[in-house]
Amino acid sequence: MNPIIGNLNYNKDKIVKGYEKGIKKKADLVIFPELALVGYPPLDLVEKEEFREAVNQKINELAKITSEVGLLFGAITEDNDRVGTNIHNSAVLCYDGKVQFIQPKSLIPNYDVFDEMRYFEPAKEVYVHEFKGERLGISVCEDIWNDSDYWYRRRYEVDPVEKLRKKGASILINISASPYSYGKRKERLEMLSTICRQDKLPLAYVCCVGVQTDLVFDGGSMCLNKNGKLVQIGKSYEEDFILFDTNEDKEIKTEVEKSFEEEVLTSLIYGVREYFEKMKFERAIVGLSGGLDSAMVTYIAVEALGKENVHVILMPSKYSSKGSIIDSEKLIKNLGISSDNVSIQSVVDETIDRLSPKFQKKLGKVTGENIQARIRGVYLMALSNNDNYLVLTTGNKSELAVGYCTLYGDMSGSLAVIADVYKSDLYRIANFINRIKELIPKEIITKPPSAELSPNQKDQDDLPPYELLDKILKMYLEENKEYDEITAVIKDENVVKKVLRMVDINEFKRRQAAPALRVSRKAFGYGRRYPIVQGWRT
Amino acid sequence: MNPIIGNLNYNKDKIVKGYEKGIKKKADLVIFPELALVGYPPLDLVEKEEFREAVNQKINELAKITSEVGLLFGAITEDNDRVGTNIHNSAVLCYDGKVQFIQPKSLIPNYDVFDEMRYFEPAKEVYVHEFKGERLGISVCEDIWNDSDYWYRRRYEVDPVEKLRKKGASILINISASPYSYGKRKERLEMLSTICRQDKLPLAYVCCVGVQTDLVFDGGSMCLNKNGKLVQIGKSYEEDFILFDTNEDKEIKTEVEKSFEEEVLTSLIYGVREYFEKMKFERAIVGLSGGLDSAMVTYIAVEALGKENVHVILMPSKYSSKGSIIDSEKLIKNLGISSDNVSIQSVVDETIDRLSPKFQKKLGKVTGENIQARIRGVYLMALSNNDNYLVLTTGNKSELAVGYCTLYGDMSGSLAVIADVYKSDLYRIANFINRIKELIPKEIITKPPSAELSPNQKDQDDLPPYELLDKILKMYLEENKEYDEITAVIKDENVVKKVLRMVDINEFKRRQAAPALRVSRKAFGYGRRYPIVQGWRT
Repeated sequence: MNPIIGNLNYNKDKIVKGYEKGIKKKADLVIFPELALVGYPPLDLVEKEEFREAVNQKINELAKITSEVGLLFGAITEDNDRVGTNIHNSAVLCYDGKVQFIQPKSLIPNYDVFDEMRYFEPAKEVYVHEFKGERLGISVCEDIWNDSDYWYRRRYEVDPVEKLRKKGASILINISASPYSYGKRKERLEMLSTICRQDKLPLAYVCCVGVQTDLVFDGGSMCLNKNGKLVQIGKSYEEDFILFDTNEDKEIKTEVEKSFEEEVLTSLIYGVREYFEKMKFERAIVGLSGGLDSAMVTYIAVEALGKENVHVILMPSKYSSKGSIIDSEKLIKNLGISSDNVSIQSVVDETIDRLSPKFQKKLGKVTGENIQARIRGVYLMALSNNDNYLVLTTGNKSELAVGYCTLYGDMSGSLAVIADVYKSDLYRIANFINRIKELIPKEIITKPPSAELSPNQKDQDDLPPYELLDKILKMYLEENKEYDEITAVIKDENVVKKVLRMVDINEFKRRQAAPALRVSRKAFGYGRRYPIVQGWRT
Repeated sequence: MNPIIGNLNYNKDKIVKGYEKGIKKKADLVIFPELALVGYPPLDLVEKEEFREAVNQKINELAKITSEVGLLFGAITEDNDRVGTNIHNSAVLCYDGKVQFIQPKSLIPNYDVFDEMRYFEPAKEVYVHEFKGERLGISVCEDIWNDSDYWYRRRYEVDPVEKLRKKGASILINISASPYSYGKRKERLEMLSTICRQDKLPLAYVCCVGVQTDLVFDGGSMCLNKNGKLVQIGKSYEEDFILFDTNEDKEIKTEVEKSFEEEVLTSLIYGVREYFEKMKFERAIVGLSGGLDSAMVTYIAVEALGKENVHVILMPSKYSSKGSIIDSEKLIKNLGISSDNVSIQSVVDETIDRLSPKFQKKLGKVTGENIQARIRGVYLMALSNNDNYLVLTTGNKSELAVGYCTLYGDMSGSLAVIADVYKSDLYRIANFINRIKELIPKEIITKPPSAELSPNQKDQDDLPPYELLDKILKMYLEENKEYDEITAVIKDENVVKKVLRMVDINEFKRRQAAPALRVSRKAFGYGRRYPIVQGWRT
């Protein structure tokens, strides 16, 4: 199920329709994901009493429609004492017209993009619920990620799933909302499989799908038999309905994850499509520079929204190369999209003419470069305001990491499409897109990257080669390594020092960046919280 | 003590100097605030193993310099098992050349701007430490904010201070890092006083001072005798050294808090000063419109940085009134600052000329307004880039709440000085500034607010009167009330509905806003996390 955060009517209707479909298909129990009624993550909406009351009312409305067929879904519930928030992230089981059982989440994740301790208290206890001759062992998301056999280092003391097994569960059910990152689906299957095997219990893992601003939920609910074999898997990147016979033993052979290139590309396309749908926008605009980043974002937008909904604009200056225009035009033709071309030069010149007498110092290189980037930002936003486009920003993760981008310039826009993808990975994805037919002109892939803000400028004048840069960045950002650990691998201490420093001092830019679709284990934004003003490693 | 986050050498030096001063003044125990060695909040720096190792090394270095005089300070410590983070926010007591006692924090705040559960595990137990014939009951910040006699509704089950008392503490010590909001200092004194009185114990409350990006720590460490009377209070908004004789009984009579206007103004001035000092910047630039907001920010910058370090620029368009220029010039004269005047009109005209043929629809009112605001942003940022100013943004909390501001336009800048102050409160503060002498020209205070982006535009054409708007906003934001609760007080349902909707749909703007100095109990930014894409109350 793909919920909209906070839209209780919309989510409730989806649950009702799914429940009815389940009844028609002769299910005994119909299961929806974590916080299905509310949407995940609801963030500070949870702190509003009126919101929680509305949720509670919807829970009761849902309970009332139930027959003897079980309805299990995620919602916010409350208990009542004078200590703590008393709010829970719960699995709610209804049948015979009533809420029959509530199992709050026991393990409350509070790392990376997860802030659940801010809102939710852990369950005081877990219970097995008898239903139609089975003993349901119900857990919520994180509850199942703490198995002591699978993990060497655990986050929590308690293992609620182990408790459920000991209390005699005959079936495990885990409702979940687990954001995408590459490699996670495979890891999840392995972990769940281990649990089923050791407990000799079948498992229904029911997760949500959809994109919530920058968080991509990739779907792929899974059913495993008591030998830990996958017997059902739901669609990825769309809603699905699976009928799971817990006695079913026939293993399905499938790759749960495709290649890095394909998965990340699909996630980004899905991310753009969902952002527009949920924001009720149709049309995107992209500033096309002739470089790889804007070409990739345009391609992704076309796949997400349809070519009729993507408009690109070339905004050349006197530093723009002929090649860039030609390459851009080739891309426009390949994708079949509308385009326009408006020079920024006269506006840039007028700006510099006006300001120059006021500058105390001579017009600096960076000043001049930033004026160009910012006038482009003005253009894009004016077109957005006037003709109802959303602006997609085109910066990649490598650039954003080292601050090789202009605040209020190329950083202007509603959604940063590829800001969680390193430049070197973008090349791989571009080649993947071109595997059958050349859609991204090969010139765009092969030419040396340049911002074209100064004469003959190349990225590599200011930055280490992207392969090296990205290697350092991955260690620093994804693996949380520090200077000593990185220089143990990358011997060039000056480069490492320079890169780490660039990442740190550009935190102020990222604080004002557009939300970036998250496809890695550690994205900028919500899941990485770094002080702007700080003196570590100075 | 005013630490710099992450700058361990700097912080260690301060601790060493303070300790030496304490010895000279014949103290038995020298106490520094929560995470004094690290700076608060260190955020994701805590997740770096190399950082924690460096902290541990500094702790040992500090221990080594100690004599029989105790040294107590806040730092990160670790224990070692295979579950959880094993990281603690601790009070570390050293003497005789060694770490003698570590008391981790028991209550880990995880609400508003606090994210400590992300990093820190609670203490497993609290202990009293015998030292020089006294039994020290040491707690860390939040530990003391859970007294069951003082609070009707508590956040935590445990009361670590109660435990310390039961274990026979003869003195209470609380090290703290508590961000400013108006009214908190008074509330804190009342609460601490209650605890001392009921436990019949003296208390040293030692907190940090300084500004960490947007969080203002206002200082004001306090010593209370066993009757709960205030016997010592440290300076606000600067470092201080207090000698506390725990047998001292002489109550001091002082107002711990000044008026709202004075406190908030002082906090904002302090915030700007600290941001520049810690970022190693000296000079600020402000775009002066002739309205109250930019006048206030300019005044605050002058107080913070000195008039020689504040430069203002008037950027009139054809919609700028003569009055605005005259009023701005009066302010410039009053404050004795340098200024410049550059029209944006020719650049705006050139932009519109260039773009108009590309617009699908006729040039819209909002498009035209935003182009003006954004060209001003381009100007300010160019001056900033070229002549090394930091740009201060001038939006207030009322505007930012309802989105009455332009992304990449007037929202451009490093620090949002008054973005946590409602417009109606700004009038009060302006009058406070003028109480002796008219520094903010009275015309600026009395004229109807206008963005001057269209002919004869007034804020009140688009928004409810600020007194009404702010009343709704305070209920919605500060008190977390919702539609039904607000309309129970404000009878105009349409206005309430409109305001709430404006706040919600403009979350995307605030996500890209500059950090805003926090002076209220609920500021935009880090402490308020609201989904951009959501459907509550649609």
